Amino acid sequence: MTKEELDAHFKEVEKSPEHRVLHDLGFFGHFIHVHAGGRSGKQHILAKLLCHDGHLTQRELLERSHVTSAALSEVLTKLEGEGLVTKTRSDQDKRQMDIALTSRGVLRATQLVEEQLKFEEQCLSALSQDEKVRLVDMLDRMRESWCEYEKEKKEAECKN
Amino acid sequence: MTKEELDAHFKEVEKSPEHRVLHDLGFFGHFIHVHAGGRSGKQHILAKLLCHDGHLTQRELLERSHVTSAALSEVLTKLEGEGLVTKTRSDQDKRQMDIALTSRGVLRATQLVEEQLKFEEQCLSALSQDEKVRLVDMLDRMRESWCEYEKEKKEAECKN
Repeated sequence: MTKEELDAHFKEVEKSPEHRVLHDLGFFGHFIHVHAGGRSGKQHILAKLLCHDGHLTQRELLERSHVTSAALSEVLTKLEGEGLVTKTRSDQDKRQMDIALTSRGVLRATQLVEEQLKFEEQCLSALSQDEKVRLVDMLDRMRESWCEYEKEKKEAECKN
Repeated sequence: MTKEELDAHFKEVEKSPEHRVLHDLGFFGHFIHVHAGGRSGKQHILAKLLCHDGHLTQRELLERSHVTSAALSEVLTKLEGEGLVTKTRSDQDKRQMDIALTSRGVLRATQLVEEQLKFEEQCLSALSQDEKVRLVDMLDRMRESWCEYEKEKKEAECKN
């Protein structure tokens, strides 16, 4: 495909439902990443600690997060600096660090989780009950077909 | 809200349309990030270069990407190592580096863009024409209400 053909194709598809849906999905993905996950993962770490009575070892936190060991260390240093968690050597295993929410950390984590729940309650407020059911059905089918697409692509790559 | 109340709430909402839609949106966001953006941003950089006749200065690339200067340098070093781009000092401005696709780089970039277009064509294949129109409408309204939510949250934070 030449550059001119590509340009023409891009202009043609710009107003297609496919293009608009992907554009919207990109927005939702970014929104969820920034608001529910937090760019730095701080919110995620605080919520994880709150769900485990306020403390976990650094290794347990790593297993429950989708970040690298280096990224987790960085986030924990920031949270410690903000007075939201403490890091102390574990009594059970001297090689491990215990990470615990401070009382300010518990307050902040609870506030974040409550905000998230409030958002979750409101996230489909623009739709009627009937539309909500239809939306779930459509997205579930799309998701299935995307997984299928990914599988076929992987199989084709393995054959090459 | 206590931990017990939160747990009960989580169990209650687990099968709600809200929860299922957010879960699906998370999947789509991740899929788009990995397949269309590429974790490292390599695909994005190659596509940008292809759209500009195969070459841009490093500064121009930075302005057109949503990455940090350090992240861009890292990606460019990888692409250079794979023989897909060359880095040479600019004739016009000695402080700038010219980044150009090699002939292999052009082939790879074209292939990636074609794959992306193919996926874009297929991404709504699970839906009927009528459903596609409804989906765009629903997502657009959701998007608007999410932006509104974000705005209200920011205003509330400014007042505190």
